[in-house]
Amino acid sequence: MVHPEGTKSPPALVHHRPGAPARIVVLVSGSGTNLQALIDAENAEKAQHAEKAQQAETVRQAQQADPAFGATIVAVGADRTGIQGLERAEQAGIPTFALRVKDFATREDWDRALRDKVAEYEPDLVVSAGFMKLLGPDFLAAFDGRVINTHPALSPSFPGMHGPADALAYGVKVTGCTVFFVAGGVDDGPVIAQAAVPVEADDDVASLHERIKTAERALLVDVVGRLARQGWTIDNRKVTFQ
Amino acid sequence: MVHPEGTKSPPALVHHRPGAPARIVVLVSGSGTNLQALIDAENAEKAQHAEKAQQAETVRQAQQADPAFGATIVAVGADRTGIQGLERAEQAGIPTFALRVKDFATREDWDRALRDKVAEYEPDLVVSAGFMKLLGPDFLAAFDGRVINTHPALSPSFPGMHGPADALAYGVKVTGCTVFFVAGGVDDGPVIAQAAVPVEADDDVASLHERIKTAERALLVDVVGRLARQGWTIDNRKVTFQ
Repeated sequence: MVHPEGTKSPPALVHHRPGAPARIVVLVSGSGTNLQALIDAENAEKAQHAEKAQQAETVRQAQQADPAFGATIVAVGADRTGIQGLERAEQAGIPTFALRVKDFATREDWDRALRDKVAEYEPDLVVSAGFMKLLGPDFLAAFDGRVINTHPALSPSFPGMHGPADALAYGVKVTGCTVFFVAGGVDDGPVIAQAAVPVEADDDVASLHERIKTAERALLVDVVGRLARQGWTIDNRKVTFQ
Repeated sequence: MVHPEGTKSPPALVHHRPGAPARIVVLVSGSGTNLQALIDAENAEKAQHAEKAQQAETVRQAQQADPAFGATIVAVGADRTGIQGLERAEQAGIPTFALRVKDFATREDWDRALRDKVAEYEPDLVVSAGFMKLLGPDFLAAFDGRVINTHPALSPSFPGMHGPADALAYGVKVTGCTVFFVAGGVDDGPVIAQAAVPVEADDDVASLHERIKTAERALLVDVVGRLARQGWTIDNRKVTFQ
């Protein structure tokens, strides 16, 4: 079978500084529920560390506290203003920015501006969390193998904008969600993790999508943490945590 | 999305005689491991019934024994001779037949002969259990909505002969198996049931296929029993147990 994005790229390793949390830029377009799940995961770690630090006799003991999330959100970007996703970031004290396509002469100009803005934050990972614009080639070239996205289906099934509706129309009994590395195609980049979600007999698109989104949030938090803590390789489309 | 086999057929209901076990014809081409799982399910029911009958004070109590399989294999057919699948049937005392394509003038003649042979056994369900020939239009017209097959992937992903290998090549982390009604296309008929199967980091095609086949056998036995006991409808591709 043919994988249009090219599959023979050399293994990519996570680039974050050993010992430091991985730096994450999150891109949003809407309500930011996946962003909130990541913020909560990071804050749970901070709370846990604070508690452990109080209990621990030494700072060193505190640092050895049980599995930390391992990632810190350094910025949240959007393709529009006035959205709940940006509000969530501001409430969490995370820097935000918005770059609107219509404020640029061309789509390519926007793509390069987004690339440069994200690059200022020196991210180890860029997380597209409900970001509704396709990222262009200049952006993806700058962060090759470091941009992740979610899809509300078990890729390669049901790519595109209507994963849950297409799954219902086909009549599958199991669907799910996919976290993958963005590679220029539509929901067809290397798969990092997937979770299966049952289709119930009385499901409509809304009830199925809600069940998938619940699984997706948990999977995304798990994946971002594991990528941050363990690093990864991408070898001929096969993604492996190190 | 387009479903080539046509999806607006009226609901089909199982036709077996109420109170009697559903009559199953199983088609095989090889080792017959799925056939053996069905034979074992039927025999487990018989053994359970015999035991209950001994324990029960009346026949009526025995008949109320806990969920019976609800199906009986009335014949096993093959497209070749000398295979383990036919041996398994003979050892279980089930009538067998073999119709080889090369013994007929045309493929269509073979398809009609197979149809007529299967029809002699008046099946409520025809189970393609590792049957390696595509069933033709005359056969499918005679048993419309009553022929089931398995596919070692989560349809619509990875149709065709190489489901496990294609899943590995794509790099999915979740695959599975599908039991569906045969509808003339390649592994794209209405889905009856699916089970998810994880892909492990060190899987090769053989290890993944073995894990899928284990799940598939259990799913097939469960589906055949539920179809037999409950009946079903197929409405615009959506399969529902009654």
